[in-house]
Amino acid sequence: MNNKQNVGILGATGMVGQRFIQLLENHPWFQVSWLAASDRSSGKTYGDAVRWKLDTPLPPAIASMPVSPAVPDDAPQIIFAALDTDIARELEPKFAAAGCAVISNSSAFRMQPDVPLVIPEVNADHLALLPQQNWNAASQQRKGYIVTNPNCSAIGLVLALKPLEQRFGLRAVFVSTMQAVSGAGYPGVPSLDILGNVVPFIRNEEEKLEAETQRLLGRLEEGKIAPLNAKVSAQCNRVAVEDGHTESVSIQLAHSATRQDILAAWREFHPLRGANLPTAPAQPVEYDAREDRPQPRLDRMRGRGMTATVGRLRPCSLLHWKFTVLSHNTIRGAAGAALLNAELLASRGMLLPGVSVSPGTSA
Amino acid sequence: MNNKQNVGILGATGMVGQRFIQLLENHPWFQVSWLAASDRSSGKTYGDAVRWKLDTPLPPAIASMPVSPAVPDDAPQIIFAALDTDIARELEPKFAAAGCAVISNSSAFRMQPDVPLVIPEVNADHLALLPQQNWNAASQQRKGYIVTNPNCSAIGLVLALKPLEQRFGLRAVFVSTMQAVSGAGYPGVPSLDILGNVVPFIRNEEEKLEAETQRLLGRLEEGKIAPLNAKVSAQCNRVAVEDGHTESVSIQLAHSATRQDILAAWREFHPLRGANLPTAPAQPVEYDAREDRPQPRLDRMRGRGMTATVGRLRPCSLLHWKFTVLSHNTIRGAAGAALLNAELLASRGMLLPGVSVSPGTSA
Amino acid sequence: MNNKQNVGILGATGMVGQRFIQLLENHPWFQVSWLAASDRSSGKTYGDAVRWKLDTPLPPAIASMPVSPAVPDDAPQIIFAALDTDIARELEPKFAAAGCAVISNSSAFRMQPDVPLVIPEVNADHLALLPQQNWNAASQQRKGYIVTNPNCSAIGLVLALKPLEQRFGLRAVFVSTMQAVSGAGYPGVPSLDILGNVVPFIRNEEEKLEAETQRLLGRLEEGKIAPLNAKVSAQCNRVAVEDGHTESVSIQLAHSATRQDILAAWREFHPLRGANLPTAPAQPVEYDAREDRPQPRLDRMRGRGMTATVGRLRPCSLLHWKFTVLSHNTIRGAAGAALLNAELLASRGMLLPGVSVSPGTSA
Amino acid sequence: MNNKQNVGILGATGMVGQRFIQLLENHPWFQVSWLAASDRSSGKTYGDAVRWKLDTPLPPAIASMPVSPAVPDDAPQIIFAALDTDIARELEPKFAAAGCAVISNSSAFRMQPDVPLVIPEVNADHLALLPQQNWNAASQQRKGYIVTNPNCSAIGLVLALKPLEQRFGLRAVFVSTMQAVSGAGYPGVPSLDILGNVVPFIRNEEEKLEAETQRLLGRLEEGKIAPLNAKVSAQCNRVAVEDGHTESVSIQLAHSATRQDILAAWREFHPLRGANLPTAPAQPVEYDAREDRPQPRLDRMRGRGMTATVGRLRPCSLLHWKFTVLSHNTIRGAAGAALLNAELLASRGMLLPGVSVSPGTSA
Repeated sequence: MNNKQNVGILGATGMVGQRFIQLLENHPWFQVSWLAASDRSSGKTYGDAVRWKLDTPLPPAIASMPVSPAVPDDAPQIIFAALDTDIARELEPKFAAAGCAVISNSSAFRMQPDVPLVIPEVNADHLALLPQQNWNAASQQRKGYIVTNPNCSAIGLVLALKPLEQRFGLRAVFVSTMQAVSGAGYPGVPSLDILGNVVPFIRNEEEKLEAETQRLLGRLEEGKIAPLNAKVSAQCNRVAVEDGHTESVSIQLAHSATRQDILAAWREFHPLRGANLPTAPAQPVEYDAREDRPQPRLDRMRGRGMTATVGRLRPCSLLHWKFTVLSHNTIRGAAGAALLNAELLASRGMLLPGVSVSPGTSA
Repeated sequence: MNNKQNVGILGATGMVGQRFIQLLENHPWFQVSWLAASDRSSGKTYGDAVRWKLDTPLPPAIASMPVSPAVPDDAPQIIFAALDTDIARELEPKFAAAGCAVISNSSAFRMQPDVPLVIPEVNADHLALLPQQNWNAASQQRKGYIVTNPNCSAIGLVLALKPLEQRFGLRAVFVSTMQAVSGAGYPGVPSLDILGNVVPFIRNEEEKLEAETQRLLGRLEEGKIAPLNAKVSAQCNRVAVEDGHTESVSIQLAHSATRQDILAAWREFHPLRGANLPTAPAQPVEYDAREDRPQPRLDRMRGRGMTATVGRLRPCSLLHWKFTVLSHNTIRGAAGAALLNAELLASRGMLLPGVSVSPGTSA
Repeated sequence: MNNKQNVGILGATGMVGQRFIQLLENHPWFQVSWLAASDRSSGKTYGDAVRWKLDTPLPPAIASMPVSPAVPDDAPQIIFAALDTDIARELEPKFAAAGCAVISNSSAFRMQPDVPLVIPEVNADHLALLPQQNWNAASQQRKGYIVTNPNCSAIGLVLALKPLEQRFGLRAVFVSTMQAVSGAGYPGVPSLDILGNVVPFIRNEEEKLEAETQRLLGRLEEGKIAPLNAKVSAQCNRVAVEDGHTESVSIQLAHSATRQDILAAWREFHPLRGANLPTAPAQPVEYDAREDRPQPRLDRMRGRGMTATVGRLRPCSLLHWKFTVLSHNTIRGAAGAALLNAELLASRGMLLPGVSVSPGTSA
Repeated sequence: MNNKQNVGILGATGMVGQRFIQLLENHPWFQVSWLAASDRSSGKTYGDAVRWKLDTPLPPAIASMPVSPAVPDDAPQIIFAALDTDIARELEPKFAAAGCAVISNSSAFRMQPDVPLVIPEVNADHLALLPQQNWNAASQQRKGYIVTNPNCSAIGLVLALKPLEQRFGLRAVFVSTMQAVSGAGYPGVPSLDILGNVVPFIRNEEEKLEAETQRLLGRLEEGKIAPLNAKVSAQCNRVAVEDGHTESVSIQLAHSATRQDILAAWREFHPLRGANLPTAPAQPVEYDAREDRPQPRLDRMRGRGMTATVGRLRPCSLLHWKFTVLSHNTIRGAAGAALLNAELLASRGMLLPGVSVSPGTSA
C-alpha cells in the first residue's frame, strides 16, 4: 500500500495522454487509477485501445487497466485532461461540476476570466482566481475547478521572457516558430505535408501564442488578470521535427539591459527553489553559449524535458535583443506543464477540491 | 553551327555549378564551352570529376568536356562563377583583369562600392556602377568586370519587398528564415545535424541578409549606392528541406496600404515585361491565397524556380503586415539569379566586355 | 476543336487522381472531360474539392470543372480509375457494365482470372483475356471492360525481371522494399510514424507483390494466365521518402548468365519500340553503373518517371545475382502505368469498347 | 575514493567515442581517466575538442579533462578504441604491445584468426583465442591483447540468429538492411544524400555483414574459429534515420521449427543470466507481436539500447521464415557492444592483461 493520490486521465489514448502516463510512472505523489477516452476505446483495456507512440514501454499495469467512459461517475477527484478543444469545452465543466480538480491542457478555457492559465515559475499567483469559479451552482459542498496550462508554443517563450520582464520590463515581442509535428497529435500532420517541407500555418496558433503570452505575463489586479501591455507578434510554422518547438525571438525592453544583465536574469531565475516539486527542473531557463544552439534534437530533453533552453543572444537592429528559445512541446509544453501545475496546487494544499480551495490558501 | 555565345563556369562541380549546367542546357543565347574547378578535378572529364546531384541527367556533351584549370588563359569572355568566398576573392579579379565579364554568385565582392549587386527586376540601374571598376590598371583595351547576385536568403525577400517599397515606402523589416540544406553546398550540412532537427545558426548569413537587402533596395546617387534607410533584422535557421528557403516576414511601411493595395503591388510588378529575357519568370512575385502556402516542396518550382511565392498576408500587431515568402535557393537564389543577370547584361549590349561597357549603355 | 478522345477520372481528388490530371495535361491523344470523386466533393468545382499536392500547378481548365457523382450516366467511355480497393470493387463493375473501358489502378480485380493485369512492356498479350469479361449480361451492344495495372511495388521489380526471365528463365526472387509515403495516399502515413523512422509493415503489400509478380510474368495458355512457376518472397517497408520505391532484389535464374549477359538483356529490352506510345519511355529499364545508384531523389524522374532504374548488379552468395531497382511509385507505379495501358489499348484499336474488343485484335 | 578501474578511450571525440563517455558515466566498474583523439584535438580540453552530438549533457568532469596524444605512454591498461579502420590498424597493435587490453570497435582486426570477434551472449567462448595473440615479441611480462565487437549491422542480426542456430541449425540467411546515418559517424552522410532519399550502398558493409555473421556463429575448434557453414547474402542500404538499424531477414533452418518454437527460442535466450554484467539487458532478444514493429524510433532504446527487437515472424515462400530485427547501432552496435565485452572479460578475470589471460581462464 502506498499513500499516493489517485489521479485520472481524460483523453488518455492521445499523444498528450500517453505523455501523462509516461510522466506519472513512478511519480512520488500521484498514481494513475482511472483512464478515459472516446467511446470507441471505452470498454477495452488501455493496451488494446492505445497506439503507444513513445519510446519507453507502456507500463504493464497501465496496459491492463480498463478504459472508462468519459463521465465523472467513478473518476477520482484529480483529473488530468488532454482533450481536443471542442470536447474539452463540453466535458471539463462536467468534471468540475462533479467536484474534480481538472488540470487541463486544452485551450478551451484558457482565456476565460476566472480560469487560471498558469506556468508555476511564471504566474503561480494567478491561482487566486480559483475561488471565483462556480461550475456547479447547486452544490457547495465539493467544489471542483479547472486550471489550465498554456499552448505548447507559448510556454517556452514565456519562460524565457518572464525573467526579463521582471527585471527590465517588456514592451514588444516578435516570435517566429518552427514547431514539431507531435504538437498536432496523432495521426496529425500527414507525412506528405512535412517531409522535406515547411508548412507556414497552424490553425489558431498565432492568436493563442499572442494572447496567452500577454495573459501569462499579466498581473492579478482586483481579482482579474490584466494582460501585459506589450505588443506580441507571432508567426507559426510547422517543420519536420518530431518533438521540440524552436522559436526565433526579438524583444524590446522597457529599461536597457546589457548582455550580462540578461544572462544573469535567466541564470538566476529560480522562482520554485525550495518548493521541491518533483517535476520542476533545477534550471527552468538555461542559456547555452554555443553558437548553434539550442537545437531540438539535442536540447529538448534538458531538465527531463522541462527546461527551456535559450541561445544566440545578440542585439537586434530593429528591437533590442534577439535570441532563440527551445522547449519540449509535449513535456514542458503539455503533459509536464499540467503535471507541474498539479504539483504546485498540491504543495499549496489546493489540489483536493472542496477542502482547501478557499481565498485564504492562494499564494 | 549556331551563333550562341560561349560561356565558362568557374566552380563547375559544386552544387551551384551543377545548376548552371542544368539551366544552360538548351539555353537560347549561351552555350557552355569551358568548365573549371579545383586542381583536384583539373584534367579529368567533367563526368569523372563531378558528383552530379540533380534529378535531371548530366548532359552527355558536358560529361565528356575536360575540366580546365581555374585560370583565364583559354577561358571564354563570359564567366559564371560559383566559388566559395575565399577562392572567389582571389580568382574573380584575375578573370576580370583578363577582360572577362564575371557573373558571380559569390559574396566576396557584393558589398564593394563599385560592384553592382543586382536582381534584374529590382535594381537593374545599379549596373551603372560597372564603368567604375578597374581590375586591370595596365590595359584599357578589353575591360572586364564583376557583377554579383545576392545571397540565396536575400533574393526572395527583396523580390517581395521591392513592389511594396516602390509604392508605399519601407521603414522596417523583420525576417526569420527556414533555409534548405542545399544552400550549404555539398557535402555541406551533415545529416546528423538536420534530421529531425533545426539549426538556428548559419555563419554570416544574418549579416549578409540584412546588409544586402538594404543595398539592393538602395538608390544610385551620384555614382554610389545609398542603402535603403530601413531597419532590417534577420534570424536565420536551417531546416530539413532539400531546396527552397521559407521566410516569415513582418514589415513597417512608410505610407499606409490596404491588403488590396499590397496584393495589387505584387500582382502588377512586371519590371522586365517586354525585355524577353529567357530565364525571367512571367510573374516574379506570385501571391497564393491558400491559407497554408507557400511551401517549399510544392511551390519552389513556380516559374521554373524563378518566381518568389508570397502568402499569408495579414496584419502584424507590432509592425504593419506579416507574410511568408518562398523562393528556390539554388535557382532564383543562385545559378538562375546569375543567369538572369547575364541575360540582362546581354539585352543591354553590356555582356561582351571591352565593347559595350560604357556609361552610355547603362540603364 | 481537336480530335482527342474524352476521358474521365474516377477518384480524381486523391494522390493518383492528381497524377492522372498532371500526366493528361497536354496529352496528344486524350483530354479530361469528366471528373468524379466521393459524395463529399460532388457538386464542387475540382479546384475547390481537391487539396492539390503536386509541384506543378493545377491546370486552370481542370480547376473550374465540376466534380461529378461517381455514376456512369454522363461519363465518357474511357475511365481512368484511382479508387480505394473497396470502392473500386463496387464502382468499377458498374462502369464496365455501362460500356466503359475502365483503366484501373486498383487492386480489386487484379487477380480475377478474366481481368488482364498488364504492363505494356511485359505482358501486352494478356489483353487477350478481355473478351472473356461480361459485366453486363443483359446487353451485348456496348461491351465495357476492366484492365488493371500492378501494385506500385511490383511494377519496377517486374520491369527489371522480365528481360532476364525472357532470356535466362527465372526460378526465385527475393525482394525487400523501401517504399515512399505517397504510395499510401493522402493523408496516408502520419508524420509521427515516419520521421526518423522505418515502418516494416504495409498491409497486404507483400501478398500483392508476390502474387502480381508471378501473374505478370505468367503465360497466357488456353485463355488463362498460368503464373510463372518461380518462388517470390517479399518484405515490404515504408521509409521517409516522398516518391520512389527502392527495392533490394536477389534472383535465381534457370540458365546461367554473366554480368554482361544481364546488362545486355536490360539494355536491349525495347518491346514497345515502334509503337510510339506517348507515355512510353525510350528506355524502360536503365542500368546506372555508379556504385551508389539508383536513389529515389535522383533517379525517380528518369524517362519522365516511367523508367525503372537498376544498379549494383553483383553476385549473390545465396541465389545468383543481386541488384537494386527503383521506380516512381505514383507515375510508373500508378497513374503513368494506367495511362500507358490506355495508350497500348488505343494503339491496338481496343480502347473504345464495343467496337473493337474481339479476340482478333489482341497481340 | 572509489575502486573503479581506470579506462581510456581512443578516438574519444567521434560519435562512438561520445557514446563510450555517455555509457561510462556512472558505470559501477569503470571510470574514464584518459581520453585520446587525433593530433588536431590533442592538448585541448575534451569540452573544447568535441562537437558533442548526444542528447544527454557532456559530463562536466569529462569536459575539463585534457585530450592526450594517441600514444600508450600514460594510458591506462584498459582501452576502449573507437577508431577509423586505417588508424586502428596502426594504433591498436601499439597499445596491445604496450600491454593494454584493447577493446576495439573497429573492423581492422575482426577477421584476424587470433583476434576474438565477440558478442557476449553469442560466442563468449571465442575469447579462448586471446593467448594466441603476441603483439610484443620482446616482452612477456605484461601481455596486451585486442578484442573486437562486430559491425553495427551484424550484431542485431546475429543476436536474433543465435538462438535459432543453437536449437534448429541454420543453413541460409538473406538480409536487407536499412541503416541509420549515425553509423557513418560525423560529419558522415551529407544531408543532401539522405533527406527524402535512400542510398543503396555502404562501402564494404555487405562483405563485413556476411563474413562477421559466419564467424560470430562459428565454432572454436582446435584453437581456430570455423565459420558457420551457412550462406549469408546481404544488401545494405542507408535511410533517413538517426539511430537504429532495421533489417529484413529471411532464413533457412536445418531442422524444422514452428512459429512457437522460434518464439520460445528467442524468449528463452538468456546466456548471460547470472553473470550480472551491468550493461547486459534483461532480454537480449525481445519479440514484439504488434504487426508493425520493430521500428527504430520506438524500439531502439529497449534494454537501454542493448536489446535486439524482433518482429513480424512469418513464413517465407523461398526459405523458411521471415522476420524483422532492429538494434541500436551506436549502443548495441558499437560502444555498448565493446563495453559489454569489457564487462565479460572483467567478470572472467581476464581484463587486466598480463595477470589473468591464460588458457585456463577462458570459458
